[in-house]
Amino acid sequence: MSSTISPLAKPFPAIPMIGGVTLRVARARYKAWDRCDLTYVELAPGTVVAGVLTQSRCPSPEVEWCRQALVLGQARALVVNAGNANAFTGHRGRAAVETIAARAAQRLGCKPSDVFVASTGVIGVPLPIDKAEAGLDAAFVAQPCGWQAAAETIGTTDTFAKGAVTQAVVDGRTVTLAGIIKGSGMIAPDMATMLGFIFTDATVDAGYLQAALVAANAPSFACITVDGDTSTSDTVLAFATGAAGNAVLADDDSSGADAFRAALDDLCRQLALLVIRDGEGASKLIEVQVTGAESDRSAHRIAMSIANSPLVKTAIAGGDANWGRVVMAVGKAGEPADRDRLAIRFGNTQVARDGLAVEGYDEAPVAAHLKGQEVEIGVDLGLDGGSATVWTCDLTHGYISINADYRS
Amino acid sequence: MSSTISPLAKPFPAIPMIGGVTLRVARARYKAWDRCDLTYVELAPGTVVAGVLTQSRCPSPEVEWCRQALVLGQARALVVNAGNANAFTGHRGRAAVETIAARAAQRLGCKPSDVFVASTGVIGVPLPIDKAEAGLDAAFVAQPCGWQAAAETIGTTDTFAKGAVTQAVVDGRTVTLAGIIKGSGMIAPDMATMLGFIFTDATVDAGYLQAALVAANAPSFACITVDGDTSTSDTVLAFATGAAGNAVLADDDSSGADAFRAALDDLCRQLALLVIRDGEGASKLIEVQVTGAESDRSAHRIAMSIANSPLVKTAIAGGDANWGRVVMAVGKAGEPADRDRLAIRFGNTQVARDGLAVEGYDEAPVAAHLKGQEVEIGVDLGLDGGSATVWTCDLTHGYISINADYRS
Repeated sequence: MSSTISPLAKPFPAIPMIGGVTLRVARARYKAWDRCDLTYVELAPGTVVAGVLTQSRCPSPEVEWCRQALVLGQARALVVNAGNANAFTGHRGRAAVETIAARAAQRLGCKPSDVFVASTGVIGVPLPIDKAEAGLDAAFVAQPCGWQAAAETIGTTDTFAKGAVTQAVVDGRTVTLAGIIKGSGMIAPDMATMLGFIFTDATVDAGYLQAALVAANAPSFACITVDGDTSTSDTVLAFATGAAGNAVLADDDSSGADAFRAALDDLCRQLALLVIRDGEGASKLIEVQVTGAESDRSAHRIAMSIANSPLVKTAIAGGDANWGRVVMAVGKAGEPADRDRLAIRFGNTQVARDGLAVEGYDEAPVAAHLKGQEVEIGVDLGLDGGSATVWTCDLTHGYISINADYRS
Repeated sequence: MSSTISPLAKPFPAIPMIGGVTLRVARARYKAWDRCDLTYVELAPGTVVAGVLTQSRCPSPEVEWCRQALVLGQARALVVNAGNANAFTGHRGRAAVETIAARAAQRLGCKPSDVFVASTGVIGVPLPIDKAEAGLDAAFVAQPCGWQAAAETIGTTDTFAKGAVTQAVVDGRTVTLAGIIKGSGMIAPDMATMLGFIFTDATVDAGYLQAALVAANAPSFACITVDGDTSTSDTVLAFATGAAGNAVLADDDSSGADAFRAALDDLCRQLALLVIRDGEGASKLIEVQVTGAESDRSAHRIAMSIANSPLVKTAIAGGDANWGRVVMAVGKAGEPADRDRLAIRFGNTQVARDGLAVEGYDEAPVAAHLKGQEVEIGVDLGLDGGSATVWTCDLTHGYISINADYRS
């Protein structure tokens, strides 16, 4: 954890323990620090798993391991290493993952493919197997801990621990969904990869959990950007233990499926926004709403073009209602747009319409809106019904300090 | 011109006047400044023109005007306004361009479509027609000026005047190619659009000039990036007056065509690099060389992904040989890449090979290389013969100061 807490930080919520999930942390000492950096989560037999993984063409061996294991859909344990991403480490990196999975599998009497592994931290340095083994052995016998301790242990450059919880009534029973997440840039001094882990006591079919997670990912994790960079290790995994004892959620027609999916969507959105709230150097959370696009996909691309524009992000940092930069970002997205139909607003104030500045618009509410910690940019393309919402943060001196003033 | 000159600035070269080209500047006072801000270039009858224009879907009316006029291929004048980009200004912006073209055409007794117009500066404010007319009238009767005065007049946030010159022997005669350019971010406080103007006394067929310019643009202007943002007004125009009296260059088989194209390529590359040398906040010029890609196009995309990565650019700013960020940028490009074949070098020192850090590589020459003003990042994908070279600058506190601390 960094010493300077993001001004956009949220307090860690009260999250109840979830049946079938036991959290433990230990010191593997992957770096010269005095903190827990290995998280070991034991999952009850019968737990199913789903996941979404980085699209990077150069993923870490952990990502490759998870991608293969996800096909089987079963999980008994999760091991998360902080301080070393083990990415770009060749066969030695792969060996480290295999060793961790084998050791946890031996402990639990399960298959190695039931053990999921994720790592975050420096890249190019193979994860030291001896440290991983010793850390894992310590975790096996550690006292179980709570969610906040686990959230702190998976963090690297994060400035605050991030967790969220939701509930839903499924088949007459209350099921709980809890998540922890880490990440502050898409990749950063210590590879601030986004690693998110969701746990529920609901009974869910593995294939249906995968479908629900993919759907929940689209408007949440896939709609946030700090700097447009993509980690080699980004991972979101969801585990369902079935301890709640509800009739299995197998498809959208299952009793309570709607409520479960709504809760999962809400949880993913909460977790995704926490990452933006810890964006490197962030002083403002920016929501970009695009409407009137030719399609939702087109709207998403335009929204991401705006959210990734250094010039838009620096303008917001400076409290400048510079809608010209928004026009620029719309134009460069390469998606259908008609300059003379474009309308732009900051907060609730329309500043441009029909390809022209709104003459004499009231600047006071715009200035007040831009002074706040949460800024909304609205763009209407006036073409059709496509829409999208994405989130980012502003680009400040803090980002440069964190990323340029650091030495590996 | 800004008061703090880029540390990467080059002195303005000695450029001879070119037959058929007369440069004049005047004060239109588009902003509250005491400097020339209108450039008027008179071109001899028979001058042909070629151009490449922004790909933005929301271009300025100047861009739309030039795009139409380029079809005819004839030019008698160029008018460049600095201080107001006239972009996103609806019908009033279009009227301003038409007025300027008509006024210059009346003066010269030519068609309005023979007059090319470009503007750069704030956007969303229609170019004041009265100021444009008065400025143009003043320019008509001003004393002709030299290249440096014209280069200074087209500039906005540029910190130094940018010009270049080359020569070639064509059909037994020496022809000269000269260019001036402005731009320091792709778009900026004052819309630091890239506007480049090339002039030659060679006799060239308009269609052939267009083909040569498009070809010269690909490895030069299309291969530079400051912040990945794209202006609504980016424009490069090339004018050939024919005053040198060579036999017309009509295709690649024409006598001297090779020499002319080599000179044009060289000139475009020189001009493009000057823009990067004036990148907002730039302290280092970065050359990214990608080899071994599946195709040249794929190599270009990977190179641009590296050059646009905020994390790569901040690492170079900090003098940090953080090749992990280069791997990240390769991975996120979405192009074919095999992690375990990837090789990366800084300067001449290989730091990673076959998907692994080069064990015990000598860090001293890398550190020395990164301390310099010109940094080279080499990436070999080990797949096939595709290659590309692009240029960018580092991302520093200066960029944030220029773009966030500014108020419109």
